[in-house]
Amino acid sequence: MNRRHFLTALGASTLALASRPLWAKETPMPAQLRGDGTPYRIGALVFDDYETLDLHGPVEMLGHMPGAQIQLIGAGETARAYQGPRVVVDRPLSEPEPLDLFLVPGGLGTRTLVNQPELVAQIRRQAQMSERVFSVCTGAALLAQAGLLDGKRVTTNKAAFEWVASLAPQAQWQGRARWVEDGRLITSSGVSAGTDAALALVAQLKGREEAERIAALAEYHWNDDPDQDPFAITWGTDG
Amino acid sequence: MNRRHFLTALGASTLALASRPLWAKETPMPAQLRGDGTPYRIGALVFDDYETLDLHGPVEMLGHMPGAQIQLIGAGETARAYQGPRVVVDRPLSEPEPLDLFLVPGGLGTRTLVNQPELVAQIRRQAQMSERVFSVCTGAALLAQAGLLDGKRVTTNKAAFEWVASLAPQAQWQGRARWVEDGRLITSSGVSAGTDAALALVAQLKGREEAERIAALAEYHWNDDPDQDPFAITWGTDG
Repeated sequence: MNRRHFLTALGASTLALASRPLWAKETPMPAQLRGDGTPYRIGALVFDDYETLDLHGPVEMLGHMPGAQIQLIGAGETARAYQGPRVVVDRPLSEPEPLDLFLVPGGLGTRTLVNQPELVAQIRRQAQMSERVFSVCTGAALLAQAGLLDGKRVTTNKAAFEWVASLAPQAQWQGRARWVEDGRLITSSGVSAGTDAALALVAQLKGREEAERIAALAEYHWNDDPDQDPFAITWGTDG
Repeated sequence: MNRRHFLTALGASTLALASRPLWAKETPMPAQLRGDGTPYRIGALVFDDYETLDLHGPVEMLGHMPGAQIQLIGAGETARAYQGPRVVVDRPLSEPEPLDLFLVPGGLGTRTLVNQPELVAQIRRQAQMSERVFSVCTGAALLAQAGLLDGKRVTTNKAAFEWVASLAPQAQWQGRARWVEDGRLITSSGVSAGTDAALALVAQLKGREEAERIAALAEYHWNDDPDQDPFAITWGTDG
């Protein structure tokens, strides 16, 4: 489903929303992203006790992609990582807007969030208004609770696999996968796996060469094979 | 030099500073870090156009270490990553305080910062008040400009090697190294290399097993060999 069809499927109320400016004026784009062809709008969910690298690994790689525009979406004004540092929220989760990619990190905070029905409903709404949805680690728990994983081939953090899987028994959980793609849904395994999946998405959108350019720039050893998942053995989820 | 000797060497004015509470009250520690034995105080420099993973890779790994307390230090109230998202500054760079570790990420912003003498002097002062100093990527340019690398074995981002090295011709620049340790100084190569060096520091401080526990938790493939640096070949800095 392309962007236009996707928006059409959402109906008139969404189309009205889509005509609003997508990014708040107080958040100018970094200079290197301006005027670089088609923008690729990424919104990343943040919440207290999100896991640092779940968010910032994909942000690092996707942020080097020409046209990428990344904003943080949350319920408060800031969100504190499990590791301590805080990020600034750019847009309220309560006002979803069309996105090319909705990034959903995991972390200890998801254990609380899954029990907040209004917040889960807002996540569902933002996911429905996004071309692609990409969870990292236990971010899949939020998508599971929102009913977005039923019937899909998906994965999650191997250390928290049983808990996350219990939230969406109708999903086809993959115990051995660095990441899994099913239609417009990407779910990655724990923490660092999100970085590898993000580069795979860059390769899909902009070509393999671009993904390799970014990996080299970041001096990053890219595990580019979604089936190569040594941590399935470490954590005993490979069946 | 241990912590006490280091503080003594700084003289009375610093000891007066050391008696002030180290962390601002408005920034409570994450629950998992409270009461976990000896605190390990980490301050990380942030500035506009810092490189996302230079900061957040080490924050991810160090933040899982028992006792770790991480705060962001900067000249403004927030700092925007090159990739877009902003972080909240916890402490002003103009008021240095004793730290166990001063983390200095790199990024495009360092090109501007090296030409701001007052800011470079503040970085030097914070470095002098820190037990260890750890630069990632072009963070080494800031330390070089501050005169902190002279005579030391050091490395930096391989893609920006010539520029950074030009700022400290008296340093012993290593063109092939994932990271280098020299006394209380750790300098790592580009972006992702900081994550590997951070795990090596965890191993030094808390034992190899603890570093491996954290790497597995983050499903991270740790390059634990400082001499294994494929990007020296990619970028042509291996002599």
